[in-house]
Amino acid sequence: MSLIQPRTLKGFRDYLPAVMMPREQMMQTAREVFRSFGFAPIDTPVLEYLEILSGKGSDETDRQIYRFQDNGGRDVGMRFDLTVPLARFAAQHIGVLGTPFKRYHIAPVWRGENTQAGRYREFVQCDFDTIGTTSVLADIEAVAVINHLLEAIGFDRFTISINNRVILSGLLELHGLADKTVPVLRSLDKLAKIGREKTHEEMCRVAEISSEQADAVLALAACDGDAEAVLARLPEITAGSETAAEGIVRLTEIYRGAVASGVPTRRLKIDVSIARGLDYYTGAIFETTLDDLPEIGSICSGGRYDNLAGMYTKQHLPGIGASLGLDRLLAAMEQLNLLPVASTPAPVLIVYFDEDRRDDYLKMAANLRANGVGVEVYPDSKKLGAQLKYADGRGFTAAIVAGGNEWAESRCQVKTLATKSTTDVAYTHDDPAALVAVLKQQCDSR
Amino acid sequence: MSLIQPRTLKGFRDYLPAVMMPREQMMQTAREVFRSFGFAPIDTPVLEYLEILSGKGSDETDRQIYRFQDNGGRDVGMRFDLTVPLARFAAQHIGVLGTPFKRYHIAPVWRGENTQAGRYREFVQCDFDTIGTTSVLADIEAVAVINHLLEAIGFDRFTISINNRVILSGLLELHGLADKTVPVLRSLDKLAKIGREKTHEEMCRVAEISSEQADAVLALAACDGDAEAVLARLPEITAGSETAAEGIVRLTEIYRGAVASGVPTRRLKIDVSIARGLDYYTGAIFETTLDDLPEIGSICSGGRYDNLAGMYTKQHLPGIGASLGLDRLLAAMEQLNLLPVASTPAPVLIVYFDEDRRDDYLKMAANLRANGVGVEVYPDSKKLGAQLKYADGRGFTAAIVAGGNEWAESRCQVKTLATKSTTDVAYTHDDPAALVAVLKQQCDSR
Repeated sequence: MSLIQPRTLKGFRDYLPAVMMPREQMMQTAREVFRSFGFAPIDTPVLEYLEILSGKGSDETDRQIYRFQDNGGRDVGMRFDLTVPLARFAAQHIGVLGTPFKRYHIAPVWRGENTQAGRYREFVQCDFDTIGTTSVLADIEAVAVINHLLEAIGFDRFTISINNRVILSGLLELHGLADKTVPVLRSLDKLAKIGREKTHEEMCRVAEISSEQADAVLALAACDGDAEAVLARLPEITAGSETAAEGIVRLTEIYRGAVASGVPTRRLKIDVSIARGLDYYTGAIFETTLDDLPEIGSICSGGRYDNLAGMYTKQHLPGIGASLGLDRLLAAMEQLNLLPVASTPAPVLIVYFDEDRRDDYLKMAANLRANGVGVEVYPDSKKLGAQLKYADGRGFTAAIVAGGNEWAESRCQVKTLATKSTTDVAYTHDDPAALVAVLKQQCDSR
Repeated sequence: MSLIQPRTLKGFRDYLPAVMMPREQMMQTAREVFRSFGFAPIDTPVLEYLEILSGKGSDETDRQIYRFQDNGGRDVGMRFDLTVPLARFAAQHIGVLGTPFKRYHIAPVWRGENTQAGRYREFVQCDFDTIGTTSVLADIEAVAVINHLLEAIGFDRFTISINNRVILSGLLELHGLADKTVPVLRSLDKLAKIGREKTHEEMCRVAEISSEQADAVLALAACDGDAEAVLARLPEITAGSETAAEGIVRLTEIYRGAVASGVPTRRLKIDVSIARGLDYYTGAIFETTLDDLPEIGSICSGGRYDNLAGMYTKQHLPGIGASLGLDRLLAAMEQLNLLPVASTPAPVLIVYFDEDRRDDYLKMAANLRANGVGVEVYPDSKKLGAQLKYADGRGFTAAIVAGGNEWAESRCQVKTLATKSTTDVAYTHDDPAALVAVLKQQCDSR
């Protein structure tokens, strides 16, 4: 029989333990942060009716959907984000769930896009949303969640850029551009990437607006610097627009509320140029960048929307939420060697030293686990050197060696792998306390 | 615009918070148990080249694969289990990983099978395997892991049935049936379901063996009762087969090792009739049933295999593992109302009482979270009654009410929702200790 080449599809990847361990840790951290704010977990199917998924994002998103006919002849697709499934879910279940409904969802999504460094066709997103309220408190809370989330994952230097799309809408109204909102915002969204000049040119060409109109939009976007200073300058730039004035009040509330919630001011930026490509944001908008890795773009984005599930229900469901690109963040950390050094899932290895003592090693292991010490037993009674080499290579903290003499004398040797030192510790199956104490101390001090 | 009906595909389901919370808890418990034995997490893509997946299970499995051509014209499929991806993964990465390699993998799989109560086309499996050793220690450990896993999830009454396929092989050899192993085992596997008579009939018809031969096989399978007694009777029934004798020694080691590892004897059964449908098991075989729900079948099965990745590599990789049908277990628990009563992800609700105090509520929430108390702030300043009704309905433990008077007097009211009692507690943003203590005490006592 000829062998089948073991390989993954282009744009897909395996997660080996050294990366999967911190990845699992990140997901668990995210769950704990979300829960501490009262967000509850949900899950939805990977496959949805294609009609649920298609036509919800851009044409590009539509092309990227993995789609096929299932065995029952149904047109189905794999979800490309967690927002469209949330909209479908909310339309279907909101009667049971009630509002406000706060959910998080941590799950993979698929996009058949062209691959590039750090971008995959399968990646985990980490979304949270508050549905059924237009309260500014929910907007503020979203900023606080983003801050907690990144802090808990281990980042200190990051910037959460905040905007309120209503200010832009007011300005566009003021300059007679209300019907050009979508193409103007699309162009504006590229400002950081392609610069002022090219954005100006694209606005005039694609949105078909005048050079003066483009100047007015870009004047707002150029409003930069300290948050309180930007907030103070905005009324002047948008003078004459009541819509913009209301938007500025709300943006100020979000900013000051975030500060009251404990978000450090150094991490907050008012950036009236961010608009997000998606058309459905109608109020607050967020983007988050790592100060030391700005080139990877926003790693946590979101905003307020007026009507989440209008495609599926007549019930009006406003809400706010954001999405952390967990795998994107992980790929960046991996690329930059920021991931914690690989360690073993259990910190202690019991060396399988004396074949006749197999059941004793197993009992010792059960005893240690019952006392909260994770422990692996080497499965084969190989030479001591080989087993210690394995322990070293995998990153165990300590190895326990016990042969006939040690068992006879109710003790064992604990080898500290980092220092290559050995300690004799008393042990019997009936009294593991001394060994537990030594191992816990060694694991804690690592 | 006409509405699109919000619905899930047949055989798929949404997980609402009341079910998703215990489901997440189960997954987290499983991770902790696996890690405590030194198993490390991995992840693999949902989509694989179809040639990796097809022809690995039965014809039925092949038909059930969700398969399609991707945009690049590749034939791809969604994984139907976690074993085939593990085989591909091991073939690809074992050089880097080294052996013994112990991994766990908790992830959904897809099978387009006919749906029935409690069975879905998308479900989470929870697998663990030890690769690269033939040691009986790994077999014993697998039994210990299954025991810990179910105990940690919350079960007490379950039975782990153990067999060693080698004993059956010896018996088949003895009766000249070595070349009929597969059809005989296929029939034998149905014994519990269809009974002795029908199994006998099927063996004779499908495997084309004599009635006497079928009797001999079924005599072994009828060996029932106390584990040590069964082990003592087996040599007689298989007398004359050296293969069977070796198999009995190994099975005895697994049983006694499991007991040494702390698995209660009441949960262990020697069942020489279990063979598992899959052809690749070559040694130990496990099945696990819930004593109070035997009708749902095995909820954790596995066994030893000789050569995991023979389709993809010439490297010989023996191993042992088992798979917990996590969603199947969850569906059974849900059906039988065994799931814990829904509770909120955060136990405390801050009532949004006084609109002018928004930033104070947010500060209080941040303060409590920083002290380890999960807390949700109601987003809208609705009437007190409506907010307390929400708190009651969602299952919060306590609600905090603070209006102008309370803030002025540096205190707040803590309403215990179960007892409808109210306590006055001192609170300032600078000194939250008293409030933290009261809330922690209330959450702990629930």
